[in-house]
Formats: sequence, structure tokens, C-alpha cells
Amino acid sequence: MAERRVLYRGKILSLVLEDGRWEIVEHKDAVAVLAVEDGRVLMVEQYRPAIRRTTLELPAGLIEPGESPLEAARRELMEEAGFDAELKALFSFYSSPGFTDERITLFEATRLTPKKRSPDPGEELRVRWIPVEKVIQDFLSGALVTSSPTAAGLLWLYRTR
Amino acid sequence: MAERRVLYRGKILSLVLEDGRWEIVEHKDAVAVLAVEDGRVLMVEQYRPAIRRTTLELPAGLIEPGESPLEAARRELMEEAGFDAELKALFSFYSSPGFTDERITLFEATRLTPKKRSPDPGEELRVRWIPVEKVIQDFLSGALVTSSPTAAGLLWLYRTR
Repeated sequence: MAERRVLYRGKILSLVLEDGRWEIVEHKDAVAVLAVEDGRVLMVEQYRPAIRRTTLELPAGLIEPGESPLEAARRELMEEAGFDAELKALFSFYSSPGFTDERITLFEATRLTPKKRSPDPGEELRVRWIPVEKVIQDFLSGALVTSSPTAAGLLWLYRTR
Repeated sequence: MAERRVLYRGKILSLVLEDGRWEIVEHKDAVAVLAVEDGRVLMVEQYRPAIRRTTLELPAGLIEPGESPLEAARRELMEEAGFDAELKALFSFYSSPGFTDERITLFEATRLTPKKRSPDPGEELRVRWIPVEKVIQDFLSGALVTSSPTAAGLLWLYRTR
């Protein structure tokens, strides 16, 4: 059995050293939501301190203790964009299994219903509806600064066009 | 200007706290390589301590200091799978910009030429050629345990079929 030593225990992640050798970041799992209406993709624009850049991403967030991935997707879609919807899981992957256990599940949202938005107090983000063709083009040209679930979601859309 | 305090400086990552609030993992950028021959995808099977599971992924690795992404992709393809090839960058994304600056670029490899494999001493992996249809099916069913660049690469293939 591998020996894991916790070097840091934080709010959203912990750093552990396994067998004195593997640097591992334990992180909550995450969800992202792909919603398309009238040929436009629902996205959020926000400043990301980790990369010191503003990104354009699918609505996404961490799965809180006690939540299912589906519940987290529903909550994030409400908090970040102000919609309820029918949600269906598309697929999952590990964001970067060489160093972190974070697993991301992408959901597809249909039948969006506007609700009152309830953003996290610490989050500053802007809801943007971007034409599918444009955002795929920006992704493939390198102009889009974005996340792995967004890349996967856009490629999923690309497939059907 | 944000104040960043280094909590841990390691071999493949550093943990920093920005403005006493944002837990950020500074990590080398990475590359992955998508190669298809005779309807099969080149993949590597390996045990990943961070997730305590064996994954099936596209050949991938970190960009070492002084290397371009293209050079890293060429080296990883050689080290992990024993091939030289023509390489073309497809697209890039941040693996998980909520907490890490790691950016991954996916390359497409064509005209593969077998060379002598030169794996890292610390790496134990097995080269596998998996039929495209099967690996996409396994990904969409949830049977495939894999990484974000592999997910993106498979969706890229899916698009053309």
C-alpha cells in the first residue's frame, strides 16, 4: 500500500506526496454544462487567477460534498447563468491524471428555463451566448482561451455539424 | 499586482497562494499526440498514482525547459511509443484553469516511422493500438479511464467519422 503524506490541506485542494516521490494534488471533482439555443453556446467569461487570464468557458464548477454530479451541474447552471434545464451526462475524463485526481463530467442541457441568477459572492463572471460556428473557429485557431471541458464540449458540437 | 506566496516547490509542480486566497498549482505545460494507422489509435496504458487507476491515454508528457511544444511532442512519441512522425498542432486548452496553469497542446501525427523506444526509467507503460470505433464507444459509455487531451483527441476523430 502506498504511503501518502499530506504536505498541505487547503480549501479546494490538498497536496500529498506518495512514497516520497509522486507529487499529487487531491482536488474535488467537477462538472461542466453544454447548452445550445438558437445556434449559440452558453458560456461564461471570467478572470482566472491561476492563469492570469480571462477565459471563455462552459458554465462549470466543483461538486460539493453530498452532491451528485447531476445536482452540481444543476446548481452551477443556476448560479452562473440563471437557468434551470433538463440535464444529461455526456462523458467524463480526468483533467490531468499525471498529477491530480480531478475528474470532470460534461452534461448537456436542454429545455432551458430562465430563473433568478444566484452567483457566488466571490465570483465575477459575465454570461455570454456565442454563435457555435464562431466559438469553434476561435477554438481551432487558438484565439479562445479556455478549459478542457469546454474544448471537449465544442468538439462534441463540431461533430454534429 | 497580486501577491503570490510559494507554499511548496516540487519537481513537477509548485503550490502557491495568491492574495492569501487562491490556491494555485503551477505546473509545466504538456503535449499529447494523436496518431491513427489502419483505423487504430496509438495509446499507452499505464498506472497513474494520482488517481490510483490504470489509464489508457494518448501518448503525452510535459514540456521540458528549453523545449518547444513540437519538440516535446516528438520526444514523447519517441520515448513512449517508439515512433518518429510528422507532427501538426491541432489545438490547445488549459486542463483546469480554476486551480492550475497547465496548458495542453494536442498534436496530430502522420507518416509514423518506427524507431527504438526509449522510455523514461521511471515510467512503466504498454503501447496499445485500439480500433477507433471501439475506443470512442468505450469513451462515450464511460468504460474508458482517460485524460482530457485523450477525450479531445477522440472527439476530434469522432467528428470525421
